Amino acid sequence: MSHTAELIAVGTELLLGNIANTNAQFLSKELSTLGINVFYHTVVGDNPQRLQEAVDVARKRADIIITTGGLGPTCDDLTKQALASTFGKKLEFHPPTAKKMESYFQRLGRPLTENNYQQAMLPEGCHVLDNDRGTAPGCAFSAEGCLVIMLPGPPMECQAMFQKQAVPLLKELSDGMIVSRTLRVYGIGESAAEALLRDQMNALTNPTLAPYAKGGEVELRITAKANTEEEARQLIAPVEEEVQTILGNKIYGVDVDSLEAVCLQLLQDAGLTIGTAESCSGGLIAKRLTDLPGASTVFVGSIVGYSNEVKAKLLNVSEELLEKQGAVCAPVAEAMAKGAREALACDLAISTTGVAGPGPDDRGNPPGLIYVALDSPKGCLVKELRTGFLTREQVRMSAAQFSLDMIRRYLTGLLSF
Amino acid sequence: MSHTAELIAVGTELLLGNIANTNAQFLSKELSTLGINVFYHTVVGDNPQRLQEAVDVARKRADIIITTGGLGPTCDDLTKQALASTFGKKLEFHPPTAKKMESYFQRLGRPLTENNYQQAMLPEGCHVLDNDRGTAPGCAFSAEGCLVIMLPGPPMECQAMFQKQAVPLLKELSDGMIVSRTLRVYGIGESAAEALLRDQMNALTNPTLAPYAKGGEVELRITAKANTEEEARQLIAPVEEEVQTILGNKIYGVDVDSLEAVCLQLLQDAGLTIGTAESCSGGLIAKRLTDLPGASTVFVGSIVGYSNEVKAKLLNVSEELLEKQGAVCAPVAEAMAKGAREALACDLAISTTGVAGPGPDDRGNPPGLIYVALDSPKGCLVKELRTGFLTREQVRMSAAQFSLDMIRRYLTGLLSF
Repeated sequence: MSHTAELIAVGTELLLGNIANTNAQFLSKELSTLGINVFYHTVVGDNPQRLQEAVDVARKRADIIITTGGLGPTCDDLTKQALASTFGKKLEFHPPTAKKMESYFQRLGRPLTENNYQQAMLPEGCHVLDNDRGTAPGCAFSAEGCLVIMLPGPPMECQAMFQKQAVPLLKELSDGMIVSRTLRVYGIGESAAEALLRDQMNALTNPTLAPYAKGGEVELRITAKANTEEEARQLIAPVEEEVQTILGNKIYGVDVDSLEAVCLQLLQDAGLTIGTAESCSGGLIAKRLTDLPGASTVFVGSIVGYSNEVKAKLLNVSEELLEKQGAVCAPVAEAMAKGAREALACDLAISTTGVAGPGPDDRGNPPGLIYVALDSPKGCLVKELRTGFLTREQVRMSAAQFSLDMIRRYLTGLLSF
Repeated sequence: MSHTAELIAVGTELLLGNIANTNAQFLSKELSTLGINVFYHTVVGDNPQRLQEAVDVARKRADIIITTGGLGPTCDDLTKQALASTFGKKLEFHPPTAKKMESYFQRLGRPLTENNYQQAMLPEGCHVLDNDRGTAPGCAFSAEGCLVIMLPGPPMECQAMFQKQAVPLLKELSDGMIVSRTLRVYGIGESAAEALLRDQMNALTNPTLAPYAKGGEVELRITAKANTEEEARQLIAPVEEEVQTILGNKIYGVDVDSLEAVCLQLLQDAGLTIGTAESCSGGLIAKRLTDLPGASTVFVGSIVGYSNEVKAKLLNVSEELLEKQGAVCAPVAEAMAKGAREALACDLAISTTGVAGPGPDDRGNPPGLIYVALDSPKGCLVKELRTGFLTREQVRMSAAQFSLDMIRRYLTGLLSF
């Protein structure tokens, strides 16, 4: 039997536009992989009557209601009150939750105020969902054919609670297993990927194959539903193989987090260290590599040579070259990579130089023109990238993506010197 | 008379979680500055019946309906059809729109297909909203006491069309001017700011004063409504002054974009250059400074010394010190800032060293312990920061915020050496 969930986000800050409803995005994605339909998202403010109305509408069209927000101590337990009253339940004091809060505050060395205890008031007979990243617990109950799940508003708390505690409840509802595999692709646009895979996408019903564009790359998700996980995986395997044949090494990983995570893993596996020499990317590649825990095992550092003086002094780029050809050219990228590998004493060094924009540089080079060089024990390779008319943010992101993919290609033997 | 708008976003990609509803965030913010209430956001998929139902609900509780999405050539004019039929209108062919599309496609050198002409079918008697960033025009009409505005889904198209063409229509509805001033605050939490300003916040109705927490800082927005802009500004001035008195130099700017933008401006005004030496922030400060166009006028570069070898070799940190005290201590931060100022030949240098987490470092230092040093012609100053229990991302963001604020404080004469 197929289930339908409705998401209700509670928070005036959403209606004022202070934040985007990223919880809805996260939950929608997760629910889709669980095979649960989502037909509506609703956002309401911290207003009991309007929340009540939204819940009344939702229960008519969904058998799962998931709320986010309105659980904090300053919200008068808005959400719990509204959902409990809709389903004829009272709020009760829940001593174990109060105990947990006390010890949480003790650890933080902060005093527990009277209104914090409000958070221990929960719908009678509910299943309490612990919050290991904050103070407000969530809760869940089933009533009148509807499963109600209440999650906190801060995205980190919401996501952790959903994955650890709500997913098991939702899986119980499902009469089959939904399994997904996500192929991450760099170097081809969404519409081009779609054109290459159109026949497969149209022909398939189980598994399904769907492309999503995000952050300068494409995600291809294959999702199968079956009685067991094993069966679902067997449905996925031939489709994955077919996509691999079509897109080949443009697929940089399956069920991986990001290009930088793949690079980090490949570097660790190879026992190689890396450094960067960044001009137009201004530290973005270093930042992305060091976003990851464990980066220090392979990443030694970076020389961000934004000015020509720093390029010359620390990266040993010839001043004559900089003067004659300017900073945005292949020989400078090459010299930067070589200079960084030498100065940082690392196995591999990647460099970027280009025009981030929004305008052209003082030599008339257009925004989006970028040179990336990789220096390695096998030699140095320079590539030119033209991102076209994009924003400064997009140009810089493209430069970082291209650089990380070049590292990935080197480490998987796809570059020829 | 006060108006209420409801936002309806149309798009299955939102319900699958492929994108967040950032249009709702943008529009909510804009509507709030226009003095128009927003009580609900709704998201529906590309489904005519469910969209119709959402519109039926919305028209009962709002006198302005703004839709985003569902206008493209592959959507069967879903949104226009639903809204037109709700208000008893027909879709008509609109020749000037067809003409515009023809010339748009000619400029792009792409062929115009039959379904593109569908986009020239618009509700009878509507006001056409030109799309200068894409092909799908928007439209607006008033019927039965409701103003309906339909905007395209892609955020760039939606935002440009709203600002240029929908805002004038909405201003006609409004009987006054709404003016906001935003004070940006670093160094105090949202709840502490709220506690300090509670009396003012409760006493005020026009202007209003509201705090919003975001990205390691607090935004205080003062919003006034009056017959003229001048009157609104006069209402704001005394409140702004009062807040300035209470929060003092924790306010880093008014109507500014970010801490880095303030630093960039201050550096440009002072004619000083800056460089960074980053360990735990791993290039994030350099990245944030170079996010801004014009960064090259003051930012020379960065040495990301992630490994101790790079700290010693390029930043001239004593190996003995690194061995004895480890990388996470005040003397290392100081040596890094001094080393960077020397190596990068800049006027100011800021350094970070600390434990980004998620775990403690090999000497048992807890995640979130950070040392930041600023070296300058006036001397070198080191500060310790303890961010407490936060994620790796938050620790790194806090380190960058703290560093940028230290630069701001130096340049505004708030640091004593």
